[in-house]
Amino acid sequence: MRIAIDAMGGDNAPGMNVLGAIKYLHSFKDKRTYKNIPDSGIERPEIILVGNEDALTTELENIEGHYPVEIVHAGEVIGMHESPAQALRRKKDASVQVMNRLMKKNQADAVISAGNTGAAMAASILNVGRLKGVSRPAIASIFPTESGATAILDVGANVDCKPDNLLHFGIMGSIYMKHLLEIERPRVGLLSVGEESTKGNELTLKAHALLSNSSVNFIGNVEGRDIFKGTADVVVCDGFTGNII
Amino acid sequence: MRIAIDAMGGDNAPGMNVLGAIKYLHSFKDKRTYKNIPDSGIERPEIILVGNEDALTTELENIEGHYPVEIVHAGEVIGMHESPAQALRRKKDASVQVMNRLMKKNQADAVISAGNTGAAMAASILNVGRLKGVSRPAIASIFPTESGATAILDVGANVDCKPDNLLHFGIMGSIYMKHLLEIERPRVGLLSVGEESTKGNELTLKAHALLSNSSVNFIGNVEGRDIFKGTADVVVCDGFTGNII
Repeated sequence: MRIAIDAMGGDNAPGMNVLGAIKYLHSFKDKRTYKNIPDSGIERPEIILVGNEDALTTELENIEGHYPVEIVHAGEVIGMHESPAQALRRKKDASVQVMNRLMKKNQADAVISAGNTGAAMAASILNVGRLKGVSRPAIASIFPTESGATAILDVGANVDCKPDNLLHFGIMGSIYMKHLLEIERPRVGLLSVGEESTKGNELTLKAHALLSNSSVNFIGNVEGRDIFKGTADVVVCDGFTGNII
Repeated sequence: MRIAIDAMGGDNAPGMNVLGAIKYLHSFKDKRTYKNIPDSGIERPEIILVGNEDALTTELENIEGHYPVEIVHAGEVIGMHESPAQALRRKKDASVQVMNRLMKKNQADAVISAGNTGAAMAASILNVGRLKGVSRPAIASIFPTESGATAILDVGANVDCKPDNLLHFGIMGSIYMKHLLEIERPRVGLLSVGEESTKGNELTLKAHALLSNSSVNFIGNVEGRDIFKGTADVVVCDGFTGNII
């Protein structure tokens, strides 16, 4: 597996990004997994650092005897406070763009960025595209729970959602947790203010009907307190609520 | 001060409600306050238990040597799963209605219910009314923080809010915290997904403009992590997000 890393994105880039990537490669013999997540059995992946070649070479030279990593040059960086849409139009050679083009050209299998979230998401949409039928991507976060782990999505990609967005999040979250946690039929919960199907806001009342008639293993509404109990394997919500959580 | 208690509302009513009221009266010499909340200096209040007279008399007889409390009879109870609007129309003599009428008639200064939240709120609106200029009431919750206490509102009265609702919550929360915590100008934060005024959803972007031009001491957006830091004395949000928190 080849992982491309936005080496220039984040509060302490590129130093911490490079160090983190190298530490990751060196620690690979250990099983650094969430509790209850089975050993994936994957081999140590290849790492591609994307960013300013001179800066990254210097950072790597400061780390002695490390696993070899590839560097792919990107001449620009998108800052944390830039408007994603404007920045992506102006900076075609930004690290977050180059990284996603590597994935599009099949030269990377996955991409990681700790930089501007909106820019990272928009760069993926622009350069890689969306799955057919999915109108909006979501950001998923894995929360440790009393009984294992729960994926919550969306945690910030879409601050205003429509009911079918939540349905799509449920489908994508199910697939993700099926393959990550090897759960045959992940339980999908809709985050709301009460267990009864009549409890919720305009968005969740409509999403409840859509999820009830979908192919996912929908267990109905879950409440805030259910997240850490592990009542559901996947919890769907709008990106505003998810970000606050 | 006279406090009327809905003795029939809640998961373990009326037993726990009666016991709680009596324990409250007996413990009044101690200062059971939030950290940093100054001694209010109030006297032990009078308690009025509202509910089935026979049941409440029996409960009181089981507690020996307690402070005297008044009982006001109410012939009906609204259950936890009843629709508030329908239940209030049908049950004019419900404990939560009688309790609020005592306040309207100036026979109680405050009311407390652990029962059906929607019914408690609607009964207050129907029997007592709203302050002039306030379109929707809010439920406020006091959260302990690293530096003291923060009032969060709304935590569940209004699952779908309009921008001016959030403005009103800010004003009401300010007044509440000014008198409860004796903070001269409580800092009011708007719960959102980023500190910048451009971050938020449709609701909070508009509410930000209203709060900026209001008389409250508005400190701008606060994020989820700011709640327990105590960045603001009052945090306003829609009742869906607040309930999840």
